[in-house]
Amino acid sequence: MPSIKHLECSRCGHTASASVPQNVCPQCAGSYYVRYDLSAAKGLAARDRVTVDYPRSTGMWRYREVLPEVTPVSLGEGWTPMLPSRRYGKVWVKEEGANPTGTFKARGMAMAISMAKHLGIRKVAAPSAGNAGGAMAAYAAAAGMEAHIFMPKDVPLSNQVECHIHGAHLTLVDGLISDCGRIVAERKDAEGWFDMSTLKEPYRIEGKKTMGYELVEQLGWRYPAAVFYPTGGGVGMIGMWKAFEEMEELGWVSGPRPKMIAVQAAGCAPITVAYEAGEKASVMYPNAQTFASGLRVPKPYGDYLILDIVRASGGTVVSRTDDQIFDALSDWGRNEGLLLSPEGASSMAAYDYLIETGFLKPDDEVVLFNTGSGNKYTDVISQRLGLG
Amino acid sequence: MPSIKHLECSRCGHTASASVPQNVCPQCAGSYYVRYDLSAAKGLAARDRVTVDYPRSTGMWRYREVLPEVTPVSLGEGWTPMLPSRRYGKVWVKEEGANPTGTFKARGMAMAISMAKHLGIRKVAAPSAGNAGGAMAAYAAAAGMEAHIFMPKDVPLSNQVECHIHGAHLTLVDGLISDCGRIVAERKDAEGWFDMSTLKEPYRIEGKKTMGYELVEQLGWRYPAAVFYPTGGGVGMIGMWKAFEEMEELGWVSGPRPKMIAVQAAGCAPITVAYEAGEKASVMYPNAQTFASGLRVPKPYGDYLILDIVRASGGTVVSRTDDQIFDALSDWGRNEGLLLSPEGASSMAAYDYLIETGFLKPDDEVVLFNTGSGNKYTDVISQRLGLG
Ligand SMILES: [Zn+2]
Ligand SMILES: [Zn+2]
Repeated sequence: MPSIKHLECSRCGHTASASVPQNVCPQCAGSYYVRYDLSAAKGLAARDRVTVDYPRSTGMWRYREVLPEVTPVSLGEGWTPMLPSRRYGKVWVKEEGANPTGTFKARGMAMAISMAKHLGIRKVAAPSAGNAGGAMAAYAAAAGMEAHIFMPKDVPLSNQVECHIHGAHLTLVDGLISDCGRIVAERKDAEGWFDMSTLKEPYRIEGKKTMGYELVEQLGWRYPAAVFYPTGGGVGMIGMWKAFEEMEELGWVSGPRPKMIAVQAAGCAPITVAYEAGEKASVMYPNAQTFASGLRVPKPYGDYLILDIVRASGGTVVSRTDDQIFDALSDWGRNEGLLLSPEGASSMAAYDYLIETGFLKPDDEVVLFNTGSGNKYTDVISQRLGLG
Repeated sequence: MPSIKHLECSRCGHTASASVPQNVCPQCAGSYYVRYDLSAAKGLAARDRVTVDYPRSTGMWRYREVLPEVTPVSLGEGWTPMLPSRRYGKVWVKEEGANPTGTFKARGMAMAISMAKHLGIRKVAAPSAGNAGGAMAAYAAAAGMEAHIFMPKDVPLSNQVECHIHGAHLTLVDGLISDCGRIVAERKDAEGWFDMSTLKEPYRIEGKKTMGYELVEQLGWRYPAAVFYPTGGGVGMIGMWKAFEEMEELGWVSGPRPKMIAVQAAGCAPITVAYEAGEKASVMYPNAQTFASGLRVPKPYGDYLILDIVRASGGTVVSRTDDQIFDALSDWGRNEGLLLSPEGASSMAAYDYLIETGFLKPDDEVVLFNTGSGNKYTDVISQRLGLG
């Protein structure tokens, strides 16, 4: 595992030590990136170690060449299936529902909780649209840490069950994730909580960047033409972009990077609005509402990073209505055998749209992220189906 | 992939051709085992191909040396995590919740649907306690086949949602899986359905046997002292035992086989009753009732095989009450970060019990199967928690 040189502010470049707990940049409140000495991982010999050294490390820990040196708190996260579509020749589905806790959030929390434990933290807190909270509850339980989680009161029932079963302290809030975040910010100092909010600590990105390594490795160490990513907080996309940057530095991959497609719900589309207006950051989206609860993030903390990445990649931002998203969920259920999460299904709806508009061609190779298992949305989906 | 020599009745030894669809033995109604010419897979060189040839085949298809030659209908099943307990030094959890459709049923259905498609079958039918039906619905959708599923009307909501989303024909029955099975048997000929019932076609065993290969490979090609398996229909245990037999024939593993521990719910314990009475088969368990819906199988078709295996292995049968099972589910949620299915949690409850009785020692290495993700039981668990 490489040594960490320092943490570097993603906005102003300020650096800080990684040997003590850090949240955001004290100068500009930007999110930190972890910067490594990657010299030992350069070249194809190191890349081959990842592949052939299996099964020394399973799941996302196969990439320990580029991850912080830490004893993993692991529940088996990462190395999820890359499934070919049965209908579209160049379409892959990255099936993140196979992760522990049923979503990609497990990657970020596995890494962040591992590092928190390493740094001696005993109590963690976070606001969550649902799945990050469930994942934090699980990994905190595995690490023997105390977890305090604040969620909107109308998150899927599965997220509430996770918190209870894992012994987390759950507060259901009559409001949105932004209201939950305010409570954590207000109380954390008095309570002695470490703030694990999205992009307010450096390691959730490090866990999620493994999605970038994986998709490139699973395609045979090359880039697809485009990557569709359901974008609430946006850390998945930010992490993958960091992975691409690192992999190029390492000489593990080359060629044009994929167009990054940020997908939102029409009922909560702050990035879409900012992108179309040519802005560098978003403003609070009013009356945010969508059944894709993970996309209900009215003002993502990393908005400036997401917008940068989409533009730098030649990608775009797409938002789809709940009806369009549910149609895609039904279509892929019936014709591909996948029970997507609503967030994941937004990728498929956006793909159809960008083929329709000509932004992408049918023979462009694309990766559509299903960010979580539809099994966590039984109540939400059964309501839409008119069951029970 | 090896060639199939023939199908062989597990009760009377009668053989039949594998080149046409087959259900059960026409002489004695026993379940068929698939018998191969395994000569090409003998020895450690072939075993090494499984390990080092990765990632040629992902998931359970890494064992293609010992699986039927077929084009897989795959959703990414198998090669699930083997997680060390954080509290007990020699306890492993085989986490089958990471499979597509969230349970081990995916392995059996992936193989059975692949073979059904290969043999030209267009319509499949099965009774199900819930998860096998959901898995059949998913794989049938992936294969473009028509699926007819019969489930008790009080299965978890997630299982109903799966059938609907995957476009299966679902009938909810006011009764148990045995009543559902009767309907399939009565209607299948007139409807042209192929009967995919547990142990009434030969290939679900072949998919599930990969759990046996995996657990041995993941332990470094050796056996544990005991394997705990939640036993409804029992195919998982039957499949693993067949795997052990094959692996010994191949020279891939040696030493004493694990004690096989069949775990049941006290509210539906036909195997427990038969085992304790020294019988070779079970009788219909009256008023079967348990919140571990997958264990609600009042008369398993493969009872004679399960009882044989338990006895031959020096194992035993344990049944636990719903309260004991839920206590184990809560304990492992809070202290290990796992959200077990109720069926899975019965393994943990049974482990505690067999340590208590002295049947096993704390330093015996054991594998506890969590057969599915707790995320499929949100409604059931939230009721027990008194939520929503
Ligand atoms: Zn800064
Ligand atoms: Zn027979």
